[in-house]
Amino acid sequence: MKFVRFSKEDKEYQGVLKQGVIKEIQGDIFSNWEYTGEVFGADEVKLLAPIEPNQIIGIGANFVSKVDELPSTLPEIPVFFFKPTSSVIGPEEEIVIPGENEEVKFESELAVIIGKEARNIKESEVLDYVFGYTVGNDVTAPQYFHEAGHWTIGKAFDTFTPLGPVIETELDPNTVRVEARLDGMEKQNSGTELMIVPIAKMISYLSSVMTLKPGDVILTGSPVGAEFVKAGSTIECKIKGIGTLQNTFVNAKDRVASS
Amino acid sequence: MKFVRFSKEDKEYQGVLKQGVIKEIQGDIFSNWEYTGEVFGADEVKLLAPIEPNQIIGIGANFVSKVDELPSTLPEIPVFFFKPTSSVIGPEEEIVIPGENEEVKFESELAVIIGKEARNIKESEVLDYVFGYTVGNDVTAPQYFHEAGHWTIGKAFDTFTPLGPVIETELDPNTVRVEARLDGMEKQNSGTELMIVPIAKMISYLSSVMTLKPGDVILTGSPVGAEFVKAGSTIECKIKGIGTLQNTFVNAKDRVASS
Repeated sequence: MKFVRFSKEDKEYQGVLKQGVIKEIQGDIFSNWEYTGEVFGADEVKLLAPIEPNQIIGIGANFVSKVDELPSTLPEIPVFFFKPTSSVIGPEEEIVIPGENEEVKFESELAVIIGKEARNIKESEVLDYVFGYTVGNDVTAPQYFHEAGHWTIGKAFDTFTPLGPVIETELDPNTVRVEARLDGMEKQNSGTELMIVPIAKMISYLSSVMTLKPGDVILTGSPVGAEFVKAGSTIECKIKGIGTLQNTFVNAKDRVASS
Repeated sequence: MKFVRFSKEDKEYQGVLKQGVIKEIQGDIFSNWEYTGEVFGADEVKLLAPIEPNQIIGIGANFVSKVDELPSTLPEIPVFFFKPTSSVIGPEEEIVIPGENEEVKFESELAVIIGKEARNIKESEVLDYVFGYTVGNDVTAPQYFHEAGHWTIGKAFDTFTPLGPVIETELDPNTVRVEARLDGMEKQNSGTELMIVPIAKMISYLSSVMTLKPGDVILTGSPVGAEFVKAGSTIECKIKGIGTLQNTFVNAKDRVASS
């Protein structure tokens, strides 16, 4: 099932997308929702980020380029980071490069959406706590990383977390490929078997530290191939079964001028 | 004005505290609230963390011990970090030390609560966007810091962000002292003039990166004197004008046994 958020004439809605038709729903997608009876054509609305996350948690440097590069032992403490929920944008929205003439990196990722409160869950139980999946772009400006290793600011700018186009609830996360095309050229394309910390282990570990909540979004890492890009470029992050998340990079200055 | 959240017989309330009496309120403290007419004695209720934060942002290593140690130039990119909202507990609740026989650090801090959406605000405007202040304890387990400098996990454990006892809206943040007493012994006691990045600069800078939202809590750094502590110790974090936030440290094992 594909859950979406969308707007039409400045009003926001939630819905379920099927074969180009969106049936409006109301309620909380994690607990209790129902169809309203209203129906929209997918081409007559603007899709929004399919979720307003409770929190966004990312994992760093989580892909190798080939299976035989997978480490024999996993890191004891993986690199996790938070991104602010204010950084979320939806499909087709502009990613704003903060400084003048700067470049930032795209990072196509499988985003896991937690659906139930999860504390100390086993790896074998993780999928019971997952509501669904979307595509995320963990936009990163490493020039704003702190020299002592803190990534917070370099990942926190407004517009730095595109999400979408839909939340797919029926996906097998262990058999998907995470792809990115920059101005039409393939830059990333890896299966999730190349993750150093697999999804079940990642979420089980996180739940041993902190209680995960419905609406928490976990960005599961980006395949090799992420690159610096300038304003004017268009990035398409794609996962078959979920869809393509397309955004264009602009300079802050130009955006201010046009708004 | 002192805003509180509290519980009585398993029901949760919001209120305004004055001279030992809590007048219940309803609504959103940031936008539209009203008195319900119900009144409680402060000694007949259990105070909760006075806010359920939208996000929690901390700043690292932000105090010197003497004014003449203040650097002449400020860091270009201060060390900021996020803590999960799931780490929040209230006054008198137990701080759970994660591993067996481990020690963790307390860090008494002035916590600023944002009341209005803030984007690109000037230092001179910052106080217009602040709703109020509470006391925070940025509990930290540095043994879970990543060797490459990432603090996320070491600050993310459940119970690692005690907040309270009240939100005081009438405080001048530039004239308070941030104190901590461990088992009755003074360990921290510094005025906010010893902050390396002052509050106005910190929040103005953050707002240049990300849109701050009502309910965002900013932990403004801890004075020198934070120490490692074991289970059994009691920490009192105090700011005159707000109150004392007291919590006791327990081992995870013991807590499980007693719950």
